[in-house]
Amino acid sequence: MDRRRRRRRRRPARPRAGGGDPAEEDRLSTPEQPRRRSGRRPGSPDTRDAVLTAARETFAERGFDGATIRSIATAAGVDPALVHHYFGSKDKLFLAAIHAPADPAELLPEVLAGGPDDLGRNVVRLLLRVWDGPMQPAALALVRSAVANEWTAKLLREFLVTQVLRRVVGTLDLPAPEREARGALVASQLIGLVMGRYVLKVDPIATATPEWLVAHIGPTVQRYLTGDVRPPSVD
Amino acid sequence: MDRRRRRRRRRPARPRAGGGDPAEEDRLSTPEQPRRRSGRRPGSPDTRDAVLTAARETFAERGFDGATIRSIATAAGVDPALVHHYFGSKDKLFLAAIHAPADPAELLPEVLAGGPDDLGRNVVRLLLRVWDGPMQPAALALVRSAVANEWTAKLLREFLVTQVLRRVVGTLDLPAPEREARGALVASQLIGLVMGRYVLKVDPIATATPEWLVAHIGPTVQRYLTGDVRPPSVD
Repeated sequence: MDRRRRRRRRRPARPRAGGGDPAEEDRLSTPEQPRRRSGRRPGSPDTRDAVLTAARETFAERGFDGATIRSIATAAGVDPALVHHYFGSKDKLFLAAIHAPADPAELLPEVLAGGPDDLGRNVVRLLLRVWDGPMQPAALALVRSAVANEWTAKLLREFLVTQVLRRVVGTLDLPAPEREARGALVASQLIGLVMGRYVLKVDPIATATPEWLVAHIGPTVQRYLTGDVRPPSVD
Repeated sequence: MDRRRRRRRRRPARPRAGGGDPAEEDRLSTPEQPRRRSGRRPGSPDTRDAVLTAARETFAERGFDGATIRSIATAAGVDPALVHHYFGSKDKLFLAAIHAPADPAELLPEVLAGGPDDLGRNVVRLLLRVWDGPMQPAALALVRSAVANEWTAKLLREFLVTQVLRRVVGTLDLPAPEREARGALVASQLIGLVMGRYVLKVDPIATATPEWLVAHIGPTVQRYLTGDVRPPSVD
């Protein structure tokens, strides 16, 4: 059962807008209960949390592309300018909402600079650098929660597709269906590497050096990026 | 916190034979406390459950290879002959203990019959047949539980390694470290395919036909099985 559904069921029992999901609350109370809104100062942690909760719900429901800062601000009962002020951009808001352990926009340019022929190895190398480093617990928490719960699975998929794969595959000049097919194939190998090394701990994937993994798994990712791949609809 | 640990903490509350690990307990109590054993009838569901619980604990603790029917029977406080009678073999007992949705020993021979050059595609095809079919909910439950909990992760890893990969890679004539390296690489791609198609639902992996997936992911599995792979220690 996803979180939103549970929260909605709880709503009628609430005393006066107190208690549940702040986003949900504000959506309902915004027009009728101005007193409550006035109690929330623009800079308070309460406001920030309300925005993040509204963002998680909106991104899970509409996807990254379908969600707008305006719709999230409305859901949280705040001004869109405030959301911009806090988080800067929709990408940054998304990363904060899902507790992303790293910002692919900062890490990927280095990987992409190597050119298309080294893309496969470089992507695997970067993934291992993030996961073998101090971000591992946060990354693992994200994966565990995505597997446990459909709602978080959607958010992790949006993260992978819009923040990672789109940036990687976007460097290749390709029509959209082919880009998506290549991105999804890359995802399948990268997720499996993470699962095998950090979750199920299958030896020797779990214990191998990053270079061994780059040497063996990099060519797979490379083939998915630049080898023979047709989008499914052409079949 | 794993189940065994929790049970140990509860143990002192048990009527008699108080103390350690149930295995240890029965091993110690067998000669002196026949009354305790006699209360459990050989054919009762109670006995079957006790064997399955002891099996899960023993397989998670010692791995599939380290566990024996005898040690599991002792842990459950029953005769090894009874375990044989109920489950037939250590493999079958293991599959029952982890609620495996299918028996790879029954499914794999067909795959292996195609010979080494078709192994990659045939393995992917079989995986999709199992997962796209009625066994999907049980298989998904196994994966979800493995990601949520270290103890179940060990059991799923043992299943993959001893029941699936060993059978597939075992058909190739290879030294053990290379067999393990190839098996783990295959696992990384297969787990990722399962995650991408059934858990995170990344399009078009989630919606593609089995044949599209076989055509694109089969060659990866084939390369891991028969292509250029050296075990990590040689690096």
